[in-house]
Order: sequence, then C-alpha cells, then structure tokens
Amino acid sequence: MTGVDVDVTRMAAELPASLSRLLERFKEGKVAALARAISVAEDERPDFQALLHAVLADGPSGARVGFTGPPGAGKSSLVAAAAVAYRARDERVGIVAVDPTSPYSGGALLGDRIRMNDLATDPGIFIRSMATRGSLGGLATTSKEVIDLMDAFGFERVLVETVGVGQSELEITAAADTVVVVLTPESGDAIQAMKAGLMEIADIFVVNKADRAGALRLLKEIRQAIHLRAGDTMRDVPAHHGVDLSGIGPKRAQRVPPDGDAGWQIPVLPTVAQTGEGVGELLDAVDRHRDWLVESGALAERRRARARRRVHEVVDRELRRVAWRSAAVGELLERGLDQIQHASATPYSVAARILRALLPEE
Amino acid sequence: MTGVDVDVTRMAAELPASLSRLLERFKEGKVAALARAISVAEDERPDFQALLHAVLADGPSGARVGFTGPPGAGKSSLVAAAAVAYRARDERVGIVAVDPTSPYSGGALLGDRIRMNDLATDPGIFIRSMATRGSLGGLATTSKEVIDLMDAFGFERVLVETVGVGQSELEITAAADTVVVVLTPESGDAIQAMKAGLMEIADIFVVNKADRAGALRLLKEIRQAIHLRAGDTMRDVPAHHGVDLSGIGPKRAQRVPPDGDAGWQIPVLPTVAQTGEGVGELLDAVDRHRDWLVESGALAERRRARARRRVHEVVDRELRRVAWRSAAVGELLERGLDQIQHASATPYSVAARILRALLPEE
Repeated sequence: MTGVDVDVTRMAAELPASLSRLLERFKEGKVAALARAISVAEDERPDFQALLHAVLADGPSGARVGFTGPPGAGKSSLVAAAAVAYRARDERVGIVAVDPTSPYSGGALLGDRIRMNDLATDPGIFIRSMATRGSLGGLATTSKEVIDLMDAFGFERVLVETVGVGQSELEITAAADTVVVVLTPESGDAIQAMKAGLMEIADIFVVNKADRAGALRLLKEIRQAIHLRAGDTMRDVPAHHGVDLSGIGPKRAQRVPPDGDAGWQIPVLPTVAQTGEGVGELLDAVDRHRDWLVESGALAERRRARARRRVHEVVDRELRRVAWRSAAVGELLERGLDQIQHASATPYSVAARILRALLPEE
Repeated sequence: MTGVDVDVTRMAAELPASLSRLLERFKEGKVAALARAISVAEDERPDFQALLHAVLADGPSGARVGFTGPPGAGKSSLVAAAAVAYRARDERVGIVAVDPTSPYSGGALLGDRIRMNDLATDPGIFIRSMATRGSLGGLATTSKEVIDLMDAFGFERVLVETVGVGQSELEITAAADTVVVVLTPESGDAIQAMKAGLMEIADIFVVNKADRAGALRLLKEIRQAIHLRAGDTMRDVPAHHGVDLSGIGPKRAQRVPPDGDAGWQIPVLPTVAQTGEGVGELLDAVDRHRDWLVESGALAERRRARARRRVHEVVDRELRRVAWRSAAVGELLERGLDQIQHASATPYSVAARILRALLPEE
C-alpha cells in the first residue's frame, strides 16, 4: 500500500499562502480567523493537518472543562452560568456544544436571565455548536480538534458540553482535563448513574435544579456511591486495537485510591443554574481539581494519553483515506456487493479480498 | 505495508476444529452455540471473521426492528411487550439491548406484568445486553455482528434497543430494517425530536405512556412535523471518508416523497407498553413497513448499504491492527509522545512520521 499524500508529507514544510495568512491572523487573535480555522478542520480541507500542526505547536495551555449528563439536566444553563462567571473574572471562554438539542443558537438560556445575545456579542466568548449527526465516525476527532483550536487561540477556559449517553460522550470527556457530571433529581437515582458509567468519568458531580424535591436524597446517594467505590480495587480497562486507554485507567485508580489521601476526592455539589446558586462553589472545585491535576502529575499524564489517541486517530483516518481512494479497491467492493446480494460472498470474504489487494504479502 | 493476517487469508479455507464444531452446533440451533459465537465475535478471538463468514453465508433473512428514543421513554417495556406478542404468534425473538440502563438482567419489566424470568426462561427468546462503555470504537461493529448472528441463528425477529442520542444510535439504526422511534409526553416536544435528528431515522413513531397528559398534543405535533417534512426537497447527506451513506440518503427520499404515493407514510402511534395497549397496532405497522420494504426494493437497498458499511468496517479494523502491531511504529509513537510533551512535535507531525513508515512512496 503506497501513496502518502501531499498534505501529510508537507507537514513540516511550508503552508500554502492562504493558510499562512490564516495562521498569521489566528496568532494575532482575530476571531474570524479562529472561525475559519475551525471550518478548515471540520471540513478536512487540503492541508488542514498542516495548519493544525502549525497552530498547536506550543501545546495545550487552557483549562478544558467537560460538562456531561443526561438530556434535560441543565448542562447548557450551567455552562452559560459558568461562562458568565469566568467573564466576570476577565477570563476568555470558548464553548463547544456537542449536543443536538443545546440551545446556544438563538433564544434564551436560564429563563430570561441570560439572553443568548449577551453571550454571543461578548468578544471574550466564542461558541461553537456541533451536530452529532450526519458525520458518522468523524464526530470525535473533529470535535477534539475544535477544542484544540480554541485552546491554542488563547481561551483560558474551554467548556465542552456533551450529552452523557454512549460512546461519543466518553470520547469527548477524554478531551477534557476536568469532567463535571450534571444530574438532576428527575434524571434518576445514583444507581442508574453508576450503571451508565458516569461514576467512572466524573471528576466533579453536580446535582443541578437542587431546589427541587429529591435533590438532597440524590446528593446523599451519590456521596454514598462514591464512598463505596473508593473501596473498589482498580478495574481493568479492556484493550482495543489501535486505541490506548492507558490515560483513562490510571486516572480512575489515582482518583479514588483505597486510602483516599494523595488522590482526588470527588466533590458532589448542589447548583441551581437558573439562579446562579452554587455556581461559584462549582468553579472553585474546578480550580481545586486543576491544582490537583498539575501537582499530582495527572495533567501531564492525561495530556500524553490524549496525544496518543490523537496520533492514532490521525494515522487511522489517513490509512482509511489512502485505502479507499484506489479504483481497484472500489471495483472489488462493488463486485463483492453484487455477490453478497446473491449470497455468493459475505462482507468478510469481500473484506479479505480487498485486504489482500492492499497488503501484498512479502 | 505488508502482513495480511492468518485469520484474514484463511477466510475461504478451513475453520480450526473448535470453531468447526461450534459452527455445526450453531447450525443445529443450539442456543449455547449462539452464545459462544457471540462471545467469539465480541472478543475478536482468532478466526472470528472466518466464523462470521461461515455463519452468514446464506445472507440475512430475519426482520430487524430497532427501537430508539431518549432514556426513560419505555423502550425496554415496549421491546418486552413486542417480544411477548411475537411469541404468542410462535415467532422466535432475539433481543439486543445496547443501552447501559436497560433492565434486561434481573428485576421486572412492565411493572409486575412481565417478569424477566418469563422472558429469560423461554427458549424462543434470546436476550443480549451490550455495554456502550469500555469498548471505545468497537461498539458499533460488534453490536451489528451480534445482530447478524441472531438473524443467522434463525430468529424471525431481531429487536434492537438503543438509546437515541448521538452517533452510536445512528450507527445501530443503520443495522435495522425498521426503525421505531419511541417518545413520551415527558421526553419533550416534536421540535426537539426533529432537532435531535430522530425525524430523519424514524420509519414509525410511537408515543408511549400515551395515557399521560400531553400525549395527544405530542401525537399531533409529530404528525404535523412529518407533514411539513414531506414537502422538503431531498437533503444531501455529507460524504465521509471511507463510509458510504448512500443507503441512508435514498431511504429518506423514498420515504417521504413530495407526493407521498409510492413512498412510506410514517405512522404515529400511541402505546401504553405497561398495559399492552397499542402494541398490536405497532406490530401491524412493523409488518406493513416490512411489506413496503420488500415491494419497493428498499430492503435490498438497505441490505446493500449495510453490507457496504460492514466491508468498510472490517477492512478498516484490519488495517488499524496491522499498522499498530509493528514494533517500529510503536517506537515512533513513544518517541513522538515525548517530543509532544516538550512541545517539539505535535500529534500531526508524529502521525505523518508514522504514515511515512507505513506507506513508503513508490
């Protein structure tokens, strides 16, 4: 299998003139250049990897905070309230919403307290909503590249909102330094949250809409569940081809060691995003978690695990591209599909034929 | 890049003795053999692709019905009620639950009306719950292979339950012949469902818990939304490297043509899974959809699109495996991660180095 592409081999060389200008304006802090760079990455335009390489040369520096939880938990309101609070401290905020139902475009957040216009017209806030649909398989990588771009642009905080169900959520939380899991009294009990795996990814738990019935009980249940879990032995993370999960395994183990001293104690905090109650305490907890990440060395580890996954993703994406653009492979595929339709082949035998064409034996 | 693996080249040749025996028992209809075949596929054990090739040689024949929707919509209860109804018709039913909170293990479904034991001890029902976590990237392919295995085993109906958020859900619905989207009065309005893309994948809409307040309104809203949508022109499906979506595009266009005659009219049905109300009508609609699929040629098209995606997935999985098992690549990766940590490389330059090693230029 041969045929390294121009955009890959050119990596270390010069960017084309149009992207050079874009890079320059990006580094000058022009918001329009950030928006354009995101489009270039999302659409995987020619040389987008070279652009990302140039933009990300200095490595990550912002604090990436992921907010996840079931639909209706008030994640958007909490993210908006956090953004407003960070702005009050004069920190610049990037928001990536990977949630088809997030209300970041138009309308009002937090009832009428924060209108979207307040956020959208503040030059210190940049919001990007990303669809989870119509981009099968491309979601995870592109979303993470958008987060990287916001970080590189100089936002001190990059807030990422994802719906907390399924693998897309796990993928995205792997891109955050601090993961805030948001639940509500309505979203079910702590047992359900544990079942859904939220316990394993949370650095901080928030019970939002804490003025509603059942909030105290849920707070208590989560605290008990964390306490129980702290006694667990470290669990194995299943290996998977081409994806290294080592950054997730140690994270868990470090966070809740049996003795709970050197590790991170997961806070469980009540908030009412609509009124802003508890939001200050949440942001304090995020800062404490940040300090812990830095001091314990966990931040460096998470960043290394993240870089490892990114390398895997970029390599795999390029391998797929090189493999499927071959005309011979296309013919094998179409002929094979005809045979499958007449039950004289299966996807496995067709795949084997294609692999033999792509990977000749020594 | 060289090195086709034994399990791929052996595809057309003999299975090892242990899998030959497994295949034999599978074809004899032994449930234990189905369970074991599923494990072999899930764990990607040696020769699992050869086993799948042998098992799937006759092509699909069962009716695959996907149930999807937000958490709490009552999908599990509806699937259980459907399973009971199919059993009453003496059809055998396989159930694949790709939902971490599905109550298929232990406890009661539908209040106390159907106890799990009733389902679990019926030899005409086989239930497999699959985690959506801990198998990053592997979920979609393996789930679909489990569905294939149940179909090949001879279940007339394979019911698939997924949580309807994010891409995992879209991936799975691409594996079903008929997609039932389940909503409840509590799960939000039709506008939200449309935003979440559920409108685009539904062959049948169900408003479950239809005895609750707001059900009539939701039914009406969905019907209006479908009516509005039927006037839409066909929408483009974005292309993505290596994944052909042609089976999804035409599906939409065929289903709701402007004139609504040759196409499928999406039914919107009320059910109360707990009491069984409306379940008969739902199963009738599933059968009508099946007839339409066969007569319109849409079934053949969906199967071809499904086979196309499977071939892509199998090839991509194998390419990743071959690429990352090389020791030289492993060294490039580790050295690159060190450099990234010291900001003297980025994931993109490291990936480019690895790709140059894997894909030498002519």
